[in-house]
Amino acid sequence: MLWSSQLQTHIPKLSSIFSFSFRLRFRLRFRYKYSTMATASALAAAAAGTSPCKVVLAATVAKSLLEEVQTDLKALQRKPKLVGFLANNDPASRTYAQWTGKSCKQYGFDFELREVDKDELEEAVIAANEEDAVDGGIIYFPVFGTKQDQYLQQILDMSKDVEGLSHKYMFNMYQNIRFLDPEKTQKSILPCTPLAIVKILEYIGVYNKIIPYGNRLFGRTIAVVNRSEVVGRPLAALLANDGASVYSVDINDIQHFTRGEGVRMHRHHAVDTDFKVADVIPKCDVVITGVPSKAYKFPVELLKDGAICINFSSEDNFGPDVMNKASIYVPAIGKVTIAILFRNLVRLCQNREAKAA
Amino acid sequence: MLWSSQLQTHIPKLSSIFSFSFRLRFRLRFRYKYSTMATASALAAAAAGTSPCKVVLAATVAKSLLEEVQTDLKALQRKPKLVGFLANNDPASRTYAQWTGKSCKQYGFDFELREVDKDELEEAVIAANEEDAVDGGIIYFPVFGTKQDQYLQQILDMSKDVEGLSHKYMFNMYQNIRFLDPEKTQKSILPCTPLAIVKILEYIGVYNKIIPYGNRLFGRTIAVVNRSEVVGRPLAALLANDGASVYSVDINDIQHFTRGEGVRMHRHHAVDTDFKVADVIPKCDVVITGVPSKAYKFPVELLKDGAICINFSSEDNFGPDVMNKASIYVPAIGKVTIAILFRNLVRLCQNREAKAA
Repeated sequence: MLWSSQLQTHIPKLSSIFSFSFRLRFRLRFRYKYSTMATASALAAAAAGTSPCKVVLAATVAKSLLEEVQTDLKALQRKPKLVGFLANNDPASRTYAQWTGKSCKQYGFDFELREVDKDELEEAVIAANEEDAVDGGIIYFPVFGTKQDQYLQQILDMSKDVEGLSHKYMFNMYQNIRFLDPEKTQKSILPCTPLAIVKILEYIGVYNKIIPYGNRLFGRTIAVVNRSEVVGRPLAALLANDGASVYSVDINDIQHFTRGEGVRMHRHHAVDTDFKVADVIPKCDVVITGVPSKAYKFPVELLKDGAICINFSSEDNFGPDVMNKASIYVPAIGKVTIAILFRNLVRLCQNREAKAA
Repeated sequence: MLWSSQLQTHIPKLSSIFSFSFRLRFRLRFRYKYSTMATASALAAAAAGTSPCKVVLAATVAKSLLEEVQTDLKALQRKPKLVGFLANNDPASRTYAQWTGKSCKQYGFDFELREVDKDELEEAVIAANEEDAVDGGIIYFPVFGTKQDQYLQQILDMSKDVEGLSHKYMFNMYQNIRFLDPEKTQKSILPCTPLAIVKILEYIGVYNKIIPYGNRLFGRTIAVVNRSEVVGRPLAALLANDGASVYSVDINDIQHFTRGEGVRMHRHHAVDTDFKVADVIPKCDVVITGVPSKAYKFPVELLKDGAICINFSSEDNFGPDVMNKASIYVPAIGKVTIAILFRNLVRLCQNREAKAA
């Protein structure tokens, strides 16, 4: 009981503690700050050679995704164009924008940064929506730092939304609808960070390829620590839609996301539980944390021996002890998230072609 | 509690209930009776389309193993010879011997059946040990139906023991010693049925290839129902040596086989527990049964939703309800066991070459 009460003190409920703008800022930050302290300390422990834990680096997973992106890019026979909208004076946003540009160049995409005034952003996005030469757009938030930012995000046409944050995409993800058209020629776009974690789980063998597509997490028990609207909740839904039994852990409670016994429902449903952290963690094959707080440490003592641990926070949520318990540890995911951004951009181009055909 | 007491009534403790000769007879029987009732009923349920369970047939797994055997066979550039020793009047043994011959022909091996009198068997095996042209031998038990059969099994030179039943091989398996020589050029041979189950677990994704070789079951919880010396105990040891937490279930008790927390020990150790079946089964990712009794049915209600189930008994240990709970079900393993027999024969030839080099 001590565990759960200690833990609960340290888990911030993102949706209540942080403002929307802060959450977006956080989301951007952990994207480019992909080389974390957690990675360094995990590598040091692995180098010491006493731990049975396999450290999997985001760069390794990103490599195979980027190869796939290159193949798809070749098939497109043109250079897709991403436009970034910078309408704030946040140095972090500027750095991220510059870094997006550099990565675009590296991987064969065009990038144009459009710097506009806050009050001109809406018109600038509308204009880009109409431009044939623009394949994808990304707005660097926060702009107003209020709910107006959410409104602006929805202004970007979904056919150009590389981040997969349009309402229709989020709806499809929660409803487990994977295509935009009945003929299944246009794929629905998934939000970058949750999809990055799915791709990591595929890479490290948590998705079982022997099981039919759509059910490949059937039999897996997974905890997602953090239930933000940006990553935690969509991730829990995605994993449950793929067949997992998911405990979504937040400061106030633990929700259980499943598709019911025998994965018989088409999409997940979530139920409130009275479980404490100490009740659910020992059952979990995989624990995924994303708590943006230096003070928070996940209670690794509760882990099942040989559990798989993934940290998507820019802070080191697990601490060095995780190396003594986990079979596989992924200390950071940023580079995979970037690879997914490019993957989504290629998907948008493919959808455009499919729609035109 | 009802569960565990019901179950315990039905699990025969092979080592106490059955004589050695009966156990060997059982082992032979389930090897060639590979197309079981369990397979038929699982396929019918899968065809009905209402179950989320993926049925994996032994023939499918055997196919990829036999392809690997063919590649190795090509590299040998000669036709290995297997000799069968038939010294009883058991029609089942004769059928099995004929069937071994047929399979040898099909997969590019020479087979010779040597029919001898009980009392001439020891000399016949000793003679074959000395014959350069003989690569492997298999004795069809029961011969005397007493402990003398165990003695006879050990007469076969380990360099020709395709079944991997020589004391040295069993010792190496329990001790987690994988090679015969310090230079690691000659592989230790593993007993056919336990190794067949390992190969099935690899095929269906239970072994995680991301984790270093030797620890690939780290994080997996597995129940093996039956603790015979022929299959159940060696299997529990093999799986624990590969990193799993294994509950070995028999009529009298449940033993726990592990390599300790963080797989820190080189080989498994087994401890007695006071656990009941109902305590351990809900924790298991994989349940493997081998109870040679029509009356016995595994309590599928205890399975974790989405567990993986494998039946190596010739009887249908799970019953049709398994299809409503399991994510993957392997109803029989016989064809894989035969593929392993050939794989072991090729290994013996490779060891012979390595020794000569």
